[in-house]
Amino acid sequence: MVVQGKNIIGFSLSAASEEFVNSYDPREARTLEKFYMATKEEIEETLQKAAKAFEVYKQFPGSKKADFLEAIADEILVLDDELVQMAVKESGLPEARIIGERGRTVGQLMLFAQLLREGSWVDAIIETAQLAREPLPKPDIRKMLVPVGPVVVFAASNFPLAFSTAGGDTASALAAGNPVIIKAHMSHLGTNELVARAIAKAAQNTGMPDGVFSSLNGRGSSLGQQLVMHPVVKSVGFTGSFTGGMALYKAAAQREDPIPVFAEMGSVNPVILLPGKLKASAAETAKQYAGSITLGVGQFCTNPGLLLAIEGEELKSFLETLASEIQEVTPATMLNEGIWKSYQSGKVKVLEQIGVTLLGAGAEQEGNHLGSAAVAQVSGEDFLDNPNLHEEVFGPFSLVVKCTDKEQLLKVIRTIKGQLTSTIMAEPGELEDYQDIVRAASDVAGRLLFNGVPTGVEVCHAMQHGGPFPSSTDSRFTSVGTDAIKRFVRPLALQGFPEEMLPDEVKNSNPLGIWRKVNGELTRDAING
Amino acid sequence: MVVQGKNIIGFSLSAASEEFVNSYDPREARTLEKFYMATKEEIEETLQKAAKAFEVYKQFPGSKKADFLEAIADEILVLDDELVQMAVKESGLPEARIIGERGRTVGQLMLFAQLLREGSWVDAIIETAQLAREPLPKPDIRKMLVPVGPVVVFAASNFPLAFSTAGGDTASALAAGNPVIIKAHMSHLGTNELVARAIAKAAQNTGMPDGVFSSLNGRGSSLGQQLVMHPVVKSVGFTGSFTGGMALYKAAAQREDPIPVFAEMGSVNPVILLPGKLKASAAETAKQYAGSITLGVGQFCTNPGLLLAIEGEELKSFLETLASEIQEVTPATMLNEGIWKSYQSGKVKVLEQIGVTLLGAGAEQEGNHLGSAAVAQVSGEDFLDNPNLHEEVFGPFSLVVKCTDKEQLLKVIRTIKGQLTSTIMAEPGELEDYQDIVRAASDVAGRLLFNGVPTGVEVCHAMQHGGPFPSSTDSRFTSVGTDAIKRFVRPLALQGFPEEMLPDEVKNSNPLGIWRKVNGELTRDAING
Repeated sequence: MVVQGKNIIGFSLSAASEEFVNSYDPREARTLEKFYMATKEEIEETLQKAAKAFEVYKQFPGSKKADFLEAIADEILVLDDELVQMAVKESGLPEARIIGERGRTVGQLMLFAQLLREGSWVDAIIETAQLAREPLPKPDIRKMLVPVGPVVVFAASNFPLAFSTAGGDTASALAAGNPVIIKAHMSHLGTNELVARAIAKAAQNTGMPDGVFSSLNGRGSSLGQQLVMHPVVKSVGFTGSFTGGMALYKAAAQREDPIPVFAEMGSVNPVILLPGKLKASAAETAKQYAGSITLGVGQFCTNPGLLLAIEGEELKSFLETLASEIQEVTPATMLNEGIWKSYQSGKVKVLEQIGVTLLGAGAEQEGNHLGSAAVAQVSGEDFLDNPNLHEEVFGPFSLVVKCTDKEQLLKVIRTIKGQLTSTIMAEPGELEDYQDIVRAASDVAGRLLFNGVPTGVEVCHAMQHGGPFPSSTDSRFTSVGTDAIKRFVRPLALQGFPEEMLPDEVKNSNPLGIWRKVNGELTRDAING
Repeated sequence: MVVQGKNIIGFSLSAASEEFVNSYDPREARTLEKFYMATKEEIEETLQKAAKAFEVYKQFPGSKKADFLEAIADEILVLDDELVQMAVKESGLPEARIIGERGRTVGQLMLFAQLLREGSWVDAIIETAQLAREPLPKPDIRKMLVPVGPVVVFAASNFPLAFSTAGGDTASALAAGNPVIIKAHMSHLGTNELVARAIAKAAQNTGMPDGVFSSLNGRGSSLGQQLVMHPVVKSVGFTGSFTGGMALYKAAAQREDPIPVFAEMGSVNPVILLPGKLKASAAETAKQYAGSITLGVGQFCTNPGLLLAIEGEELKSFLETLASEIQEVTPATMLNEGIWKSYQSGKVKVLEQIGVTLLGAGAEQEGNHLGSAAVAQVSGEDFLDNPNLHEEVFGPFSLVVKCTDKEQLLKVIRTIKGQLTSTIMAEPGELEDYQDIVRAASDVAGRLLFNGVPTGVEVCHAMQHGGPFPSSTDSRFTSVGTDAIKRFVRPLALQGFPEEMLPDEVKNSNPLGIWRKVNGELTRDAING
């Protein structure tokens, strides 16, 4: 498939503007194809198509939407090596990583298709009438989740497949029954076009309405703002920087009809190293963390950017191993020039702060946009006094905070902001003495790990990828796992409707055989009525 | 119990300020007791107590929180006629209505207690580890809902018991595991104090921490804003006017760490009268609606303020009966002077709009703050052109919009804003021809009724009281029914924790016997591990 650099507006390709940007190869530091920016008219056409498509799409049964999601997965696989090489070229990520990420993307789509086929995700709740109740009869009320309307998805740079065009936000919004408009990420425009066209093809082949999916090129500050402020748009999914996420969140709150923005804005993912663990396995833990900090050039929302520990002999031995492991890490190309520059300046800024010293740094090497790993250290006292040290440095960097004692460690944890994850590294036996610490660590995070690394984010029913602010804008939702669908639906209660007018999900006969809460009891049985 | 006019700060009564307001009897138009405004110091003390109480309260098992909610219900009943008479005096509502509302309030508390004792509401989701999975092992992840922290509740005037001090917001926030701070409603300060002291007593008797509940007196524009902006506060529940709700919503979005505000701001609750229904039972339907419009002097969030129909003989006969029924309605005292004044001016404003004519008005009578019923009519065309006619007139008023045909009716429905409810009055046989209308009516509402009146809001699992903006700030949540608890919790995932460290809700052994989704399947079984 030849990349055309156009916007994908429903089933049509469009390039009305002469304004363009080039895609870019960060390893070679050279520009690639031209991509035409969406015009005002193209944006309007896209949104009108989405609104019209919604009227049709929202009425489709789960099985038909599942067909669509599965067809997207198939079409992505059909792109084969062309897609892999494009993503490698545009992101600088290694081929094995992109192939793994493609598997995750396809798996994610299949998981949502499975959720739709099973059907119970609509959370059907039925209360049958009690006409004889005194003093007033109880009406028949049946509630289920319904789609909210067109969703704008802002693709992320660090997962050009799994958190981008056909990533978790798109899969969950489409599964919910909403059309999706993608704001293509500037750092993988070709990858975006290939995947967007695969989605459009899947939509056509499975009888979806024109406009159920579109992808537009443009800048966040212009295209992004226009999309979020448009009355047709009912919800927003975003993965990226704090600045970008908050700009959208604040704009959406200023609309005449405010809409929810679920922005996942990353975090420093503190890891708490308890003394017993360091005593039992300092070297092993250090090796494990050196790997987690530098995985994918540290370009994960769940990268452990903060290691918190109590001073002592065991910590010393841990830090020695960590420093020597970090020195072994060869630098690699970062996702784009902007991220690379931010990493360089962010690292320097931390190292310039009072009390911060470098523990160890990765080898330097010739090449473009190479991110070299680094680990620094600071005392608990200096950390507590300095908010600059609480900010995320996106990349293979971690700061070790050496606390004088348990009380200072607790104070440090209570001072840090909301996080996607926090991790306790401990021997089970020592937890009895650190209950306050465990509790404080769970208060700040959406996911709390015990003796693991936070960098893997499993796509499953139990995943929570969204924590207290500022890691995300609403800790009540997740952007990874099947519960991600809940961001894009609302409950609708139907009162007093006769059986034949009810949607299948809440009919007495339960034709879909789904789990429902009937008069307070979960059951898959039909209602005798 | 003698009303003392103080703030209830945890287990203490406090009145540090000399500034006070008087409670008021709207029927007699006379001032009653003095109530002292909370000072800055008292507000700070309240919030610090709440933060401290949270650390203890959130760890309590469901059964202990259930004891507390049941004790609140008991203490409310112990207040007996004293509470009833106080609420009657301060609200102007009839005794029978207040007694009914007390039943609803107590029932609501008991329903949440039952939810806690059953325990499955935490939505436990468990994925067990697959250590042999390739290419990477699958970790053990267990997710459940946990409380977010102190919740501020803004009491509503129109339900001095059921949507106030111990109402649905308080019951659901406490059930979730969060301390509650009440901003007492100025129009029933004595009722508030009686109930707040009953809650404090119940808290003491059931071993709750000091600060689990407080109630403060003050103005929304000062006390309310201070509470919402305070870092200790993690969520807000509000029932009231659009202006009041939006002021809080916008303030909360401007915080350094934005917090969710669930504001239920009322709506006009359109009722769509289809021709077949009017033909079959015009008079009966008119009588039913005359009753619904004027119930409780029209002071319900779900009052049907808009009747939409297609012109014709049947409509004429419906309107004649409606007009004559309305003329029979004797006026009654409204909740407070502000609401009465707004009703008078709102009604006049609508009647002054182009094309609006009065259809019928209730009898006039001598008395204080009496709201007299009125029904007006306007053409579909004039309605479409005039946004002033789309606004809620809080009170016993309804506007009939006479559409030329089905297309205009559809256009009218698509023009109106988000609603708590919408209602279809129809003969089952005619719905086939009006599918677009039904769909449009469900798009704008949180609850869609068939052949009923929206004014009853059943407290049950299936209720949805929260619709698209501006009826509420987030259509994904409800403020009535057991799902109201979801506003005040967030999911927390625990990864890799050994059995003994897990909360009971997600232990392999399932000691609480609750429903859980284990590896994708709902079950109450223990996990063999």
